[in-house]
Amino acid sequence: MSKVYNTEIISVGTELLLGHVTNTDARDISEMLSKIGINVKYHTVVGDNPEKLRDCVEIAKKRADIIITTGGLGPTCDDLTKQVLASAFGLELVENKAEMDTIYEYIKGGKKVTPNNYIQAMLPEGCTVFHNDWGTAPGCAFEAEGKTVLMFPGPPKECVAMFKALGLPYLKKLSDEQIVSHSIHMFGIGESAVDYMFRDEMNKMSNPTMAPYAKECDCLLQITAKAKSEEEAEKMIAPVMEEAKARLGDYVYGIDVDTIEQRVIELLKAKHMCFAAAESCTGGDIARRFTDIPGASAVFKGGVVSYTNEVKAKVLGIDPALIEEKGAVSYEVAKEMAERVKELCGADIGVSVTGLAGPDGDGVHEVGTVFVGLAADKTYVRELHLGTYRTRSFIRQMSGNHVYDMMRRYLCGLDIL
Amino acid sequence: MSKVYNTEIISVGTELLLGHVTNTDARDISEMLSKIGINVKYHTVVGDNPEKLRDCVEIAKKRADIIITTGGLGPTCDDLTKQVLASAFGLELVENKAEMDTIYEYIKGGKKVTPNNYIQAMLPEGCTVFHNDWGTAPGCAFEAEGKTVLMFPGPPKECVAMFKALGLPYLKKLSDEQIVSHSIHMFGIGESAVDYMFRDEMNKMSNPTMAPYAKECDCLLQITAKAKSEEEAEKMIAPVMEEAKARLGDYVYGIDVDTIEQRVIELLKAKHMCFAAAESCTGGDIARRFTDIPGASAVFKGGVVSYTNEVKAKVLGIDPALIEEKGAVSYEVAKEMAERVKELCGADIGVSVTGLAGPDGDGVHEVGTVFVGLAADKTYVRELHLGTYRTRSFIRQMSGNHVYDMMRRYLCGLDIL
Repeated sequence: MSKVYNTEIISVGTELLLGHVTNTDARDISEMLSKIGINVKYHTVVGDNPEKLRDCVEIAKKRADIIITTGGLGPTCDDLTKQVLASAFGLELVENKAEMDTIYEYIKGGKKVTPNNYIQAMLPEGCTVFHNDWGTAPGCAFEAEGKTVLMFPGPPKECVAMFKALGLPYLKKLSDEQIVSHSIHMFGIGESAVDYMFRDEMNKMSNPTMAPYAKECDCLLQITAKAKSEEEAEKMIAPVMEEAKARLGDYVYGIDVDTIEQRVIELLKAKHMCFAAAESCTGGDIARRFTDIPGASAVFKGGVVSYTNEVKAKVLGIDPALIEEKGAVSYEVAKEMAERVKELCGADIGVSVTGLAGPDGDGVHEVGTVFVGLAADKTYVRELHLGTYRTRSFIRQMSGNHVYDMMRRYLCGLDIL
Repeated sequence: MSKVYNTEIISVGTELLLGHVTNTDARDISEMLSKIGINVKYHTVVGDNPEKLRDCVEIAKKRADIIITTGGLGPTCDDLTKQVLASAFGLELVENKAEMDTIYEYIKGGKKVTPNNYIQAMLPEGCTVFHNDWGTAPGCAFEAEGKTVLMFPGPPKECVAMFKALGLPYLKKLSDEQIVSHSIHMFGIGESAVDYMFRDEMNKMSNPTMAPYAKECDCLLQITAKAKSEEEAEKMIAPVMEEAKARLGDYVYGIDVDTIEQRVIELLKAKHMCFAAAESCTGGDIARRFTDIPGASAVFKGGVVSYTNEVKAKVLGIDPALIEEKGAVSYEVAKEMAERVKELCGADIGVSVTGLAGPDGDGVHEVGTVFVGLAADKTYVRELHLGTYRTRSFIRQMSGNHVYDMMRRYLCGLDIL
């Protein structure tokens, strides 16, 4: 049996305790660790206060095998994470020549370097240095008192990139077992339905294991295996994965993808097709989500945010009489929007959303009433009732997911409605 | 002197430790508490494990006066927060009649109620019940062993709404002092510059206090006063606020506003003006951010996501020869985009963004090169170089902030460029 590595992530920064910043570092590190089978048991957030941080480290030493810190590695007098962690494990900070050279390079290059910058090159004796290619403050790792300690800077871009490139490989080496995990991502089915579907098997399984998880607008089923080699773990997962995929059928939009829009990009690229979007209640969110992904321009023409009837008429060319007769939130207007934006932008597929995201109603429909359309060779419209108790942001996000689900189904030749 | 209430927020949920969900509850509660002068000292995240949660509660009892929990109040067998907290303080759970009636109402109304739903109506003896108008699981508060304990459900919408409506008033009553805090929000100046500008005063001040904080694309200066009454605290803040605002000048976009776009909505409404947006590299994000705010439709006509040159030409009507000659990322194209979208959508103001959000370049410009335009009576274009090392999402967000900053300056009659 391999050792179980219980992990605690300690995020250091008063800005987190003031609510000015969200602790995405802990989330992202946790997600990466869960995929290699390392269990995160605690997240702790503490301010830029060395005594309090020291107390937190003492608590973590008692309940965790791996301690990961984020934040407090910068050059200001608030940045004390390295000092506190080194002292908690009885280590000295020593000057690291390579990191000192990097700082001299900065100075020579004319970059503004504060007098305290050199402190960044002071690192715990005997540590493994994690050079920061995404910023200036290096991270590091050391083993002491039977614990493994890793430290990363706080800015999410630096923290996540460094953890992925340097932290994960470092931690993988700790284990004589390889843990492999894959996720089946679904839309249109809830976590509890998935749980119910696989409950009997899940209760019997020990390796691989299977567990469903809910995300805000969709859900996933994670299958994890432990073995002597990655190859062996993959082999153990494969038949379970095939069986689960077969039972889940059409609901599955991808394996190990972050979002449904990511899957839609792959499908569009494979088919050499592109799309355009006409958005009312989502107000640009479908386009924004898609263009968050680098390389979207190859398959996304653009679109129209037709937030007012005037724009629906003037830009999309929808007959104002139709809008008057059927209402802006209607099957007919959704259909026209999808068809017009496809023509207007010269796309293969046009999609549309018109609905009520709330909190105010229009006197006709309930909040959460949304029509989503897809125009290609034919036009399809889904009528959604997402619930009057839902937030504006949920309704917008869920409407977008329906649009992407329709696109995926169209591109895969599945039933769309 | 009033007592200082050190606070710990314990968020319960294995999904947080797996990285499937971000701990926005702790952030939002922290932000609300900081505004009434209650210091959050720790955030802890722990899984759905009663022994581990109990240990965390014991730690919190030693270092905090107020313990706030989020999550684990639902009807499933995983939901054990109330049981653990009650037992940690030697309290029994007793049936609450009003909450039991609510559950019977659900059942009568035909809602699916699991056999475990009634557990939600079991609450610590003598507690103050926080009825949940946004979901089903009630929260509660009690005082025991000199500590104040508050519990809220995990779903962010329920947690934040309940904390605001019920938790904050409950906590405000604890103090015989009133704490009032206001924030000056700025764009175009960094936290360190603000810190430098006010360093001398800040070092001398004790009540009110003043502190600058960085947000991702802008920053704020928070002024906080303690007094016997809110009125008195407000009086103490007023002259400091006036002086700070005067020194910060044009950089200030609002007081106590969440975002610059919120301020722009107010200004547009006051002037009975509306705008439209033509977006390339922001890909709909400007429209999305604006329409995230309820009531945006009164001042936002809509827009065009002109992600490709084809859409710039076909939908916006920009001469392809101009795009060919100057390039899509250029002063001239930004100018045309703003002017055309204004005309096309029948708006008073047209704004535009065209640039390189990366990670790939176009062989001509550096990543982070962005042109943002505003067309009204005249047309203005800013050329930005946001930095090659910046992320795609930063570049998109910062470009949006520049657009909103130009609109704010235009609407306030300030210099725009």
